[in-house]
Amino acid sequence: MAANTFGEIFRITTFGESHGKAIGVIIDGCPAGLVIDSEFISRELARRKPGQSHLVTQRKEDENFEILSGVFEGKTTGTPICIVIPNTDQRSRDYEHIAGIYRPSHADYTYDAKYGHRDPAGGGRSSARETAARVAAGAVTKTFLRQYGIEITAWVSQVGDISIPEHISIDLQKTETNPVRCPHSETAVRMEDLIMEVRKQGDTIGGMVSCLITGCPPGLGAPVFDKLHADLGKAMLSINAVKGFEYGSGFRCITMKGSEHNDVFENEAGQVKTKTNHSGGIQGGISNGMPINFNVAFKPVATIVRAQETVDNRGNQAVAEGKGRHDPCVVPRAVPIVEAMAALVIADHLLRDRTSRI
Amino acid sequence: MAANTFGEIFRITTFGESHGKAIGVIIDGCPAGLVIDSEFISRELARRKPGQSHLVTQRKEDENFEILSGVFEGKTTGTPICIVIPNTDQRSRDYEHIAGIYRPSHADYTYDAKYGHRDPAGGGRSSARETAARVAAGAVTKTFLRQYGIEITAWVSQVGDISIPEHISIDLQKTETNPVRCPHSETAVRMEDLIMEVRKQGDTIGGMVSCLITGCPPGLGAPVFDKLHADLGKAMLSINAVKGFEYGSGFRCITMKGSEHNDVFENEAGQVKTKTNHSGGIQGGISNGMPINFNVAFKPVATIVRAQETVDNRGNQAVAEGKGRHDPCVVPRAVPIVEAMAALVIADHLLRDRTSRI
Amino acid sequence: MAANTFGEIFRITTFGESHGKAIGVIIDGCPAGLVIDSEFISRELARRKPGQSHLVTQRKEDENFEILSGVFEGKTTGTPICIVIPNTDQRSRDYEHIAGIYRPSHADYTYDAKYGHRDPAGGGRSSARETAARVAAGAVTKTFLRQYGIEITAWVSQVGDISIPEHISIDLQKTETNPVRCPHSETAVRMEDLIMEVRKQGDTIGGMVSCLITGCPPGLGAPVFDKLHADLGKAMLSINAVKGFEYGSGFRCITMKGSEHNDVFENEAGQVKTKTNHSGGIQGGISNGMPINFNVAFKPVATIVRAQETVDNRGNQAVAEGKGRHDPCVVPRAVPIVEAMAALVIADHLLRDRTSRI
Amino acid sequence: MAANTFGEIFRITTFGESHGKAIGVIIDGCPAGLVIDSEFISRELARRKPGQSHLVTQRKEDENFEILSGVFEGKTTGTPICIVIPNTDQRSRDYEHIAGIYRPSHADYTYDAKYGHRDPAGGGRSSARETAARVAAGAVTKTFLRQYGIEITAWVSQVGDISIPEHISIDLQKTETNPVRCPHSETAVRMEDLIMEVRKQGDTIGGMVSCLITGCPPGLGAPVFDKLHADLGKAMLSINAVKGFEYGSGFRCITMKGSEHNDVFENEAGQVKTKTNHSGGIQGGISNGMPINFNVAFKPVATIVRAQETVDNRGNQAVAEGKGRHDPCVVPRAVPIVEAMAALVIADHLLRDRTSRI
Repeated sequence: MAANTFGEIFRITTFGESHGKAIGVIIDGCPAGLVIDSEFISRELARRKPGQSHLVTQRKEDENFEILSGVFEGKTTGTPICIVIPNTDQRSRDYEHIAGIYRPSHADYTYDAKYGHRDPAGGGRSSARETAARVAAGAVTKTFLRQYGIEITAWVSQVGDISIPEHISIDLQKTETNPVRCPHSETAVRMEDLIMEVRKQGDTIGGMVSCLITGCPPGLGAPVFDKLHADLGKAMLSINAVKGFEYGSGFRCITMKGSEHNDVFENEAGQVKTKTNHSGGIQGGISNGMPINFNVAFKPVATIVRAQETVDNRGNQAVAEGKGRHDPCVVPRAVPIVEAMAALVIADHLLRDRTSRI
Repeated sequence: MAANTFGEIFRITTFGESHGKAIGVIIDGCPAGLVIDSEFISRELARRKPGQSHLVTQRKEDENFEILSGVFEGKTTGTPICIVIPNTDQRSRDYEHIAGIYRPSHADYTYDAKYGHRDPAGGGRSSARETAARVAAGAVTKTFLRQYGIEITAWVSQVGDISIPEHISIDLQKTETNPVRCPHSETAVRMEDLIMEVRKQGDTIGGMVSCLITGCPPGLGAPVFDKLHADLGKAMLSINAVKGFEYGSGFRCITMKGSEHNDVFENEAGQVKTKTNHSGGIQGGISNGMPINFNVAFKPVATIVRAQETVDNRGNQAVAEGKGRHDPCVVPRAVPIVEAMAALVIADHLLRDRTSRI
Repeated sequence: MAANTFGEIFRITTFGESHGKAIGVIIDGCPAGLVIDSEFISRELARRKPGQSHLVTQRKEDENFEILSGVFEGKTTGTPICIVIPNTDQRSRDYEHIAGIYRPSHADYTYDAKYGHRDPAGGGRSSARETAARVAAGAVTKTFLRQYGIEITAWVSQVGDISIPEHISIDLQKTETNPVRCPHSETAVRMEDLIMEVRKQGDTIGGMVSCLITGCPPGLGAPVFDKLHADLGKAMLSINAVKGFEYGSGFRCITMKGSEHNDVFENEAGQVKTKTNHSGGIQGGISNGMPINFNVAFKPVATIVRAQETVDNRGNQAVAEGKGRHDPCVVPRAVPIVEAMAALVIADHLLRDRTSRI
Repeated sequence: MAANTFGEIFRITTFGESHGKAIGVIIDGCPAGLVIDSEFISRELARRKPGQSHLVTQRKEDENFEILSGVFEGKTTGTPICIVIPNTDQRSRDYEHIAGIYRPSHADYTYDAKYGHRDPAGGGRSSARETAARVAAGAVTKTFLRQYGIEITAWVSQVGDISIPEHISIDLQKTETNPVRCPHSETAVRMEDLIMEVRKQGDTIGGMVSCLITGCPPGLGAPVFDKLHADLGKAMLSINAVKGFEYGSGFRCITMKGSEHNDVFENEAGQVKTKTNHSGGIQGGISNGMPINFNVAFKPVATIVRAQETVDNRGNQAVAEGKGRHDPCVVPRAVPIVEAMAALVIADHLLRDRTSRI
């Protein structure tokens, strides 16, 4: 069944595998009249790109892109915007040695179980390369949201057991000043050291990306199934390697009492605000105008250098050896993907909310 | 915009507020030929019902229900099944004293912001009463899944800082033997004490519900947006008071290395299994045949007895006083809701998977 | 698969068979703030009701209804509106004699083929009774459209070979002055005579319903799949017994030349108009502000009094005898159904168009 | 709002305008394991191609295409198939003279009304070029349907007032033997003459395409909104220039009596058949195993050579002159488009029907 579309009114459909000629995305439902900034799309793609630093996979992927439709004289026309990113370094040879072998914690076995075959060259649609299409779409979406003063910023808040100290004030402008994308410089250095150490071991490590959405007006979301945080949660959980999502107080809420968790309302110069923000900017599934914040947990990348025991597609004992060029830690490159998916959710609900009242 | 529908092929649409005549659900897409067990629906509703024990709200809600359509001589016909649950104890008077006042961490303000009005009687669609409709639908859905040997079981794993000890073997058959719905009897007693203590303080406390899905065949889910765990995550985050979702290793994955997190495949009597299950039964968004497990974090209920400062809908300072009858802790009653939503996701993907191959 | 939902943003889901306790509809996506007129819903249901005149089936159906949700103090709240119409005269005994027999041109055989069973009592979901739910929803929808000056009016334009003379001016206010619902009184009398004659023969006759939508602003619809007339066409073809749909010039366009078919634009007091309206108010799938008009062909009702040869569900030769009380001609009662479905399409596109531009 | 997607389970999304770099389509939901025949896609595109005969526009469009994804070693993988058709002869200069002028019966004015701009170069998404993407997708879909013995064949049955004589036996194999695509050779010659005459006059003429679907199993479709013929109707009405749709007896049913219209069932060697087929292979919205047949009315192309009075986007009087190269009659090239859209509907319902029973 069709399963490559995300969103209701502002909607993307992605396509492409690493072994094909290209990957890409159709953005359908972007309103007419938006000025498109191609350089911004390039910059966003560069943030996700392999080879951007010593901390990430050295695999070469060219992230040139073409806008095939939906833009006329620099502005969106209201029709579908198709963006194509050619595959230039397909390297299916790198994967030939693993044909038939079910790599541990990869999608090889589940693909076989579902489709009656597996994609021997880089994981097919479960390859992280698919997320480049999301980032391209996310760039268009962020441009759209800026028209309304909405900004979305993500950063690395934890790698392994190294996290930004609590109760410290951080400057999100600094996120892009280091290759880890951690806005707290001292922590960034420690994270970098850990990642390099893990890489030397031929191993990988998990991490956390946090995200902040500011400028979101109150009223976005819906009270039942399409709660704003439910759609954000699905969006994040649809990103490769994500194992958990929490917003506002998140899992910490379990040990809290109502009297300390409740966010007291106050009138701040004519605007309704809350003194605290355990709600994470969303109450009853609907934005309340406060900043929206959430955390996303990423597992350690499944591809490791050391040999692992496994079975092949005939049920025979086999050994999986990780010869490909892979990330020791996925979170530095995940930051723009988290932002892109968040932007898509907010844009969709921003448009949906135009129909709430007569 | 329409936002009260969940699922693609096996799909529910719920309706109703506590101040109306009834709440209910349409189940559309349930295949023909399923034997419906009305008593099972009743039992499931009773698990969610207010007043079922001293640990939950003493508000009276009658959970009688009528099946208006879609069932003929005890079997589903393939047409929409409408189940209606009348509201018998509407008690809108209980809420009159709060009209115009924005209760902290309730949806009063965000409703106003979205719809230009608020629902003065019990929270409208953001009332937890809506979840009774989900539980009724969930009972039908579980019956459907049993045809395929799929069982879904949830339980309370944490209340406040009291949780089931790690590495202890628990017997899920015991979940229903105590009012907390914790399968570990000693822990259940401690949870019960904590909830009663919190109630005496006029306060509330958060908790966690865990869920296990067994018998799910490999191949359910999709590689990109409709990952099985992404749909489970959205389903859980759409339940009132949920602040976080994690599956398999969850947030613990952050501090793990790939070499310890990877689940090694083995051939167990002709079936592909994994030695560990950090993947939580899902790899690349697709079920792998191992048990699926996940955790859901519930915040402390926002309604507390003590008076709280707030503002009203004219921006004036006001005081919110909690006179309604509410739960000191939501998780005992959340257990069947978690199961219902999980069942809907699995049933939908079970049917979706029928179209994966020619 | 779920198939009982119509519309994207303004969306209905219907349920119910004649043998169940009730039929009904959920309207999801109706904006908040609309004043609901229950008497208007009743009047609309009365226009579709059996037994309303000597021209239609004398079967008794009570068309009482209850609004279970979505309306508070007479206004829509933005949440789903559930309307239930109880079945009071189920009379499944009337149908017992046909159990297992495939009535010619009924859905008995195709139901069997699809669901592995047939619904022996009145045709299940293929019974015209389901359309009462659409008419109830249509009444709410028309009320919504009136806020924007949009009026939808249908009438009977042909019964058998009797049609309103071409190039005659008709007064649509007169439609409801006769039981046929033909606005041209002389033609109405001839139609009435024909229907009574056909009834005496124990036979049935086909007919045509025409519809006019005025006040529709330019800009509704979409250029590709969701052309306004494509959605109107699907809406009409989803009504029982419909065999054809045409809009504007319709099938007559086949013999026309471009030079005569083209609608020349002119500036009428600052508004763009067309001199002729072969386009039927829709160009390139998008409304142009001119009146929208279309025709719908209804076949003769399949249930006739005379005995018909057929087979039963074991493939044996059998005889179908029509003992139920049925309509000799369906179009007088189809008029409000056509209006209801047209209203749903326009309302949906009216809301969809709110997201066309930044 | 997103509006460029068609289908539920087997689903296409098209993109592209004639002024952009390419047009194309994503097919999402095509089951894994289908052998793709690129040459067949080429042949189908050639049937729709401009310049294929003296009867159609002499505009040059290259119909080379690339499959960017979803196919591995010649077989579908179950992931989205993206097919791109580059624009090589964009010729936006041809249209410069009409910038700002609302061409009669084109989408210029309605685009302006909807999106706040018009697409000055060839009609944007309302250009018939978009249908090439549908034909490419249709070729894949027909290949899929052939796995199940389902064949879809369309032909030209009328041009202006010239139609294939009734009650004549026609051989659909002959459709492709003449440039009109009329299977009755003598009628084809007369149609050809009429089209050439109309072209000489600088005018255009309407026509009708008929379609036959054989091998469709009973049980496809749904009883209420998603009736098989309702989805076929929407599919056809979504094709440019279509003004009407009828199936089976179509508009002729209006003058028929039930006793002559009803299709009597009979047992033909163990299979349930009907003696006549006024039902057009569909009863109660569900296929009955008999051939499905329908007619589609196409208006005369709006672009004519002679000058036409009109207004421009400032409301000033203006003259539209048709300098582009256009079709004198659209039906010969519409035949493969009708087939493609029909194939998409049947494929979608074929997969949907896999979930009807437990």
